[in-house]
Amino acid sequence: MRCGSVSCAALTTFEPSLVRNALESVELFCFVAVYPAYWCVLVAMLPVVVVHGGAGHIPNERAETSCTGVRAAARGGYAVLKGGGSAMDAVVEAVTLLENNPAYNAGCGSVLNVKGGVEMDAIVMDGRTLDSGAVSAVKRIANPVQLARLVMEKTSHLCLTAEGASEFARAMGIQEVPEESLITDYARMRWKKNLDPGSNPVECQMGKMGTVGAVAVDTEGNVACATSTGGMINKMEGRVGDTPCIGCGGYADNQSGAVSPTGHGEAIMKVTLSRQILFYMEQGKSAQEAADEGLAYMRERVQGLGGVVVVDPQGAWAARFSSRQMAWAAAQNELLHYGLYAGEDIMQSIQDPDLPHTHSQE
Amino acid sequence: MRCGSVSCAALTTFEPSLVRNALESVELFCFVAVYPAYWCVLVAMLPVVVVHGGAGHIPNERAETSCTGVRAAARGGYAVLKGGGSAMDAVVEAVTLLENNPAYNAGCGSVLNVKGGVEMDAIVMDGRTLDSGAVSAVKRIANPVQLARLVMEKTSHLCLTAEGASEFARAMGIQEVPEESLITDYARMRWKKNLDPGSNPVECQMGKMGTVGAVAVDTEGNVACATSTGGMINKMEGRVGDTPCIGCGGYADNQSGAVSPTGHGEAIMKVTLSRQILFYMEQGKSAQEAADEGLAYMRERVQGLGGVVVVDPQGAWAARFSSRQMAWAAAQNELLHYGLYAGEDIMQSIQDPDLPHTHSQE
Repeated sequence: MRCGSVSCAALTTFEPSLVRNALESVELFCFVAVYPAYWCVLVAMLPVVVVHGGAGHIPNERAETSCTGVRAAARGGYAVLKGGGSAMDAVVEAVTLLENNPAYNAGCGSVLNVKGGVEMDAIVMDGRTLDSGAVSAVKRIANPVQLARLVMEKTSHLCLTAEGASEFARAMGIQEVPEESLITDYARMRWKKNLDPGSNPVECQMGKMGTVGAVAVDTEGNVACATSTGGMINKMEGRVGDTPCIGCGGYADNQSGAVSPTGHGEAIMKVTLSRQILFYMEQGKSAQEAADEGLAYMRERVQGLGGVVVVDPQGAWAARFSSRQMAWAAAQNELLHYGLYAGEDIMQSIQDPDLPHTHSQE
Repeated sequence: MRCGSVSCAALTTFEPSLVRNALESVELFCFVAVYPAYWCVLVAMLPVVVVHGGAGHIPNERAETSCTGVRAAARGGYAVLKGGGSAMDAVVEAVTLLENNPAYNAGCGSVLNVKGGVEMDAIVMDGRTLDSGAVSAVKRIANPVQLARLVMEKTSHLCLTAEGASEFARAMGIQEVPEESLITDYARMRWKKNLDPGSNPVECQMGKMGTVGAVAVDTEGNVACATSTGGMINKMEGRVGDTPCIGCGGYADNQSGAVSPTGHGEAIMKVTLSRQILFYMEQGKSAQEAADEGLAYMRERVQGLGGVVVVDPQGAWAARFSSRQMAWAAAQNELLHYGLYAGEDIMQSIQDPDLPHTHSQE
């Protein structure tokens, strides 16, 4: 009788903690016997990690590099989850890998501000507690996402900016890196190009893969998000975009899901895109429906383009974009999914990338 | 026939622009003749401005000063609206008056960070376009709210931080003020008190009237919000709170309303309080219901206390708080409302403060 009650609740709400409790008790066999299909689905759904490498229009010669990077990041995050790591561990690992990859506009490879300098923003959020940490306009840090996590864990604040963030990094023992080590030839070339009075940095930005981010659900059903960026090409000194702004550059809540966006930061901010998508999910939309609705809302209200990765606590996920392209990858149930164009969902084994790929279009 | 149609639409949605169009046409007399009660209500509702001077626990000796300041700010904002100014003009005027008043934690009177310095945050948002401007951790500026408005109007960005914000201020011809001119004896006394290892700045903050803010609706039915703060007592250098974070420290949308909050910034951020309240209003809640629901949500999810001022585009307004006190004032229909304790709504004439007061409890 009690077994039935717990199982029904789990079935109705698809709540991993209830299922976990059931499985840890004598009800395990009863549960699996009565609801084998549900059990299979649950095993298949968790854990999951989904990453993006920015939305926009990626030149052909950079397409393969961008896809390789997001696949590696998803694999890295997934390995953390499979090793018993939390969703927060996984998103920080995935974003760290993307920050270290010069193909993306975050960490090494960040775009330059109008003065030719690198100022980076990052955020993390933990869906268990709604705790969050962020840094804005931080300089000479190899991995802003790790600094953002330290803000969350080691201070009573949620966001530190500029020199205050640097001072905190020093207090945490994080070594500063030379600014030059974060700057690629590609970033410098694009900076120079956009110094011309007739240039259009917003349009140019959409032609470069940008911001990186990740969302994950761990085996406990906890969600988390992380986002990191060098910001907007040739931005003013001190410009803060959507990334370190909670609800805009990311949001995570175990009661609904987690979102990491990319695109035109100012547009994302005007509609608080991440929070908006989770409101849709709270109203009963699926991760994919909510992502599409949020992106359509941004396009309609402020003519903004972008993309998002989204998960819900049960492991349903989406990688959606209104821009021409978005490099993304997802790891779930020992499968790696990835894509670059709308409707693309290429699959390969997590363990053996050389196994034949499956290519599906929606 | 057309008259009836326009009027019905206006009556159903209470949409000022429809009514305005009706009144500007030959349908005026027909409209007023058919719906005299509605006309009276509309005239009474717009314009309106509501301001707050921070939520918390205000010592008795500072109560009168705090109430005087918010009344003056509401009068100032209302005069702008009655003179044909926009909702944005009104909220910036009201918040400027509060920044200039040393009784509040914004502009002159800001709390000090752990190093004894003043770093201020401010935001404005225009409900017509969802445009917004903000500054974070800015120093030596008398009126951060005016700088935030310039960020909105003169740059392609939404937020500038720290030295970048100062450089922009200089480019805009805004003169820096000596840091000492922003520091009061009261702020310095509280800073010293909270340097003790056993001190509790969050609790202490709730014992000082804090952040200031305003929301308004102009005669066109446009909404706007503005918020300004010195932040949290003895905060780390570079700490950014809710105020400059869109959706947290303020939000304004002509389709739903405008919100300016005050309270524990980190708690407000975790629940993106301003956007949350407007979601409730989009779902059909009144300004007051949405304010109460948002504050209850913050208390339940993250044990946060605070207060908000809220308007909807039709001129309904609310000043609500979960803290012990919040100094607030509202100006509408030639009446000034104000209060400090829960349920308090004291009324006086806008023009003549010496006229007998009406004191009502809910």
